[in-house]
Amino acid sequence: MKALGHQIIAEFYDCDGDLLANVDYVTDAMLEAAKRAKATIVTHTFHHFSPLGVSGAIIIAESHLAIHTWPEYGYAAVDLFTCGDSLHTEQAFHYLREALKSGTFSTMSLERGHQAMLAGRVPVEAPKKVVNG
Amino acid sequence: MKALGHQIIAEFYDCDGDLLANVDYVTDAMLEAAKRAKATIVTHTFHHFSPLGVSGAIIIAESHLAIHTWPEYGYAAVDLFTCGDSLHTEQAFHYLREALKSGTFSTMSLERGHQAMLAGRVPVEAPKKVVNG
Repeated sequence: MKALGHQIIAEFYDCDGDLLANVDYVTDAMLEAAKRAKATIVTHTFHHFSPLGVSGAIIIAESHLAIHTWPEYGYAAVDLFTCGDSLHTEQAFHYLREALKSGTFSTMSLERGHQAMLAGRVPVEAPKKVVNG
Repeated sequence: MKALGHQIIAEFYDCDGDLLANVDYVTDAMLEAAKRAKATIVTHTFHHFSPLGVSGAIIIAESHLAIHTWPEYGYAAVDLFTCGDSLHTEQAFHYLREALKSGTFSTMSLERGHQAMLAGRVPVEAPKKVVNG
């Protein structure tokens, strides 16, 4: 284990502004992205802003997915935060890029909770997270 | 305007594990952090995992705050994503650091939605986001 979490910071430019303004479309696209990542969806919340823009987050057993859209700029900021090695975040990213019709994009990959910083606090066997209820 | 959004990636190490395992405490701390940032809270969702750990997000009119805790490691990953220049994210960060009793921490600051990438898509006057309802 190098780190506890892995985060993809995605910048989607030149998207379809009408899609970015549609809260139902953005919600469905994010939920589908979570499914394609093979994530376990716990709960989600999405909100439409006037006159434009959608913000939302999906809590997954493996952390979260979040999006903020600026339809007037054709821009969406997406974070894909996961823990463990089992998720297919690349598939989620590529699906979203196509769903939002992004012509230009960039990504940054971050490690969260570095092993070197956890030394001395690491339990003999780290409990696996399980969704309650 | 240099960018549409600003994101603080905070790594809180050496926290109080009991606090990180308490979903009510973590929820209250995050909501208080949002208030100290002078954010407009739209909705929030927090979830407790068995046997340990809390994940949650607060959607604010100015983007989002998110947290994931690993009590067994004394570690919490926090993202403070805001747009506009009006929020006091530094106050939110310092409040959370004290609330979680983090002994060691690091932060990274990211700009989201760069101006140079938005050229040609910038409206004459960008509409201000307003919370619906």
